[in-house]
Amino acid sequence: MARENSAFHSESMPPAYPMREVGWLHSGLPRAFSMDKSRCGRDRARRFRERCRKGEFDSPTCAQEPDFVQANLIGIPKDHAFDFLQFSLLNSRACPLLDIVSGRDSPSIAAEADLSTDLPRYRVFRHGAFVEETKDTSRFVEEKNLIFFLVGCSFTWEHMLHEKVGVRHIQEWKNVPMFKTNIPNEHIGEFWGNLVVTMRPCMPGNLKQCIDTTSDYPGAHGGPVHAGNPSAIGIDDLGKPDYGDRVTIHDGEVPVFWPCGVTVLEASISCKSIPLAITHSPGHMLITDIFVDELRGE
Amino acid sequence: MARENSAFHSESMPPAYPMREVGWLHSGLPRAFSMDKSRCGRDRARRFRERCRKGEFDSPTCAQEPDFVQANLIGIPKDHAFDFLQFSLLNSRACPLLDIVSGRDSPSIAAEADLSTDLPRYRVFRHGAFVEETKDTSRFVEEKNLIFFLVGCSFTWEHMLHEKVGVRHIQEWKNVPMFKTNIPNEHIGEFWGNLVVTMRPCMPGNLKQCIDTTSDYPGAHGGPVHAGNPSAIGIDDLGKPDYGDRVTIHDGEVPVFWPCGVTVLEASISCKSIPLAITHSPGHMLITDIFVDELRGE
Repeated sequence: MARENSAFHSESMPPAYPMREVGWLHSGLPRAFSMDKSRCGRDRARRFRERCRKGEFDSPTCAQEPDFVQANLIGIPKDHAFDFLQFSLLNSRACPLLDIVSGRDSPSIAAEADLSTDLPRYRVFRHGAFVEETKDTSRFVEEKNLIFFLVGCSFTWEHMLHEKVGVRHIQEWKNVPMFKTNIPNEHIGEFWGNLVVTMRPCMPGNLKQCIDTTSDYPGAHGGPVHAGNPSAIGIDDLGKPDYGDRVTIHDGEVPVFWPCGVTVLEASISCKSIPLAITHSPGHMLITDIFVDELRGE
Repeated sequence: MARENSAFHSESMPPAYPMREVGWLHSGLPRAFSMDKSRCGRDRARRFRERCRKGEFDSPTCAQEPDFVQANLIGIPKDHAFDFLQFSLLNSRACPLLDIVSGRDSPSIAAEADLSTDLPRYRVFRHGAFVEETKDTSRFVEEKNLIFFLVGCSFTWEHMLHEKVGVRHIQEWKNVPMFKTNIPNEHIGEFWGNLVVTMRPCMPGNLKQCIDTTSDYPGAHGGPVHAGNPSAIGIDDLGKPDYGDRVTIHDGEVPVFWPCGVTVLEASISCKSIPLAITHSPGHMLITDIFVDELRGE
């Protein structure tokens, strides 16, 4: 017999299963962060962004504010945003999406942040050509109906890795070395290119620790894609990174390579059809409100 | 000392860690299915789609080809696709994306499928108004530069659930009952609306089995969002589903509610600004090439 609604009383029923507790990472968009959580304790992230806004911090953000998730920034006109979003989803190791932000809006993952000023340093491109490096891009934001994509960054977990096995560029006060590889991205429309990786050397006995520590954070690129012979992934000379700084590699160490958000930065800035693209300067990331623990995968 | 590239030999190095083995579900787009896997054994899915194309199958697809993942279809003009894709990512319990397909292309997840003819039945909308129900939409596809979104469906796991605890609409040879709820979606741009759910009644002792069996499949909506009192989620009368058929609820049974892909179908067809939208008819899904086991979450 079909029962009447009135026969159902919540008191006698099992508890409801709220949707929102389940797996934001499956979507790649942690909007959940903005909803029910307190901002308590996140003032440090906000204050760091204010220092960037005032020009008081103008360096790579590695080892800065290690409690908080860091993010890559790519801003392109809305006309190109659908293709770029598909490209990001199909290359999610390089491009784990954290948020999508329209024009002057603040991101869900960084309360009251101004994306035009709150990163230490930006690069501006027009029709695929580099125009300038700057600390303030506010004059560009209204120009082309820009959409900003915030993408996870390996700086998120590297302080943790540093405590366990030592991270060379932190020891040497440098920016992380980044290399272009020969591993092709899945392409969509005008977005192509190869995977870009960050490199951290380690002793072979520490490799498992490197994998285990970082694989828990798919929203920050997760585990390495390669360890060992650089030429196997198209890197000719570890002494000449394409971005960032050269670091020391000691005898017996192996280079370990992780996907890098510069992958999507390169894919977007190289498009001649895109009249304006604004990105962070490699290594100069957004400090978000997300505690590192909150990004841990399921 | 920085070492020369020539000092690295793959023979002496740990194995590489291939990217593509890792976690497609984190992106919501299982493009991986199209890449390295054999099509062996998938002829059954293709033959089913051919039957639809020839008009030989014209019913709901529940309990059809239970080895294969089923998918919702929503086709809208590319101008609206970026907002819709964001909406899908932010409401991923209702809208777990399986693929995105442009115009007349075949989906990665259904080889050589023609999305205009290979589902049993479609609905066509113009500027938010229902136009017709049809078995062939090929005359519309070129009209508006359509992008098709394929979204996971609970029919994927319900044969498995039927074997364990019995699924009422399969027992009664009906289409699954679907209800509009009062649970609001996250909205983006012009895409709004409330969650739509499928309902399957079960004895309270079977509820844990329902949750466990379905939670393994986030790409097919995963576990239930609610069990028990329908009015708690805005459903007035279980005897009057908004889509599909009324089913028997026996004494002592509780209704269990799962997110339904009709959620995004409703959100898109209700937009007056969208000149043309094409969807499957509720319950008349695409049979894909993906084996159900391949969709199991990590």
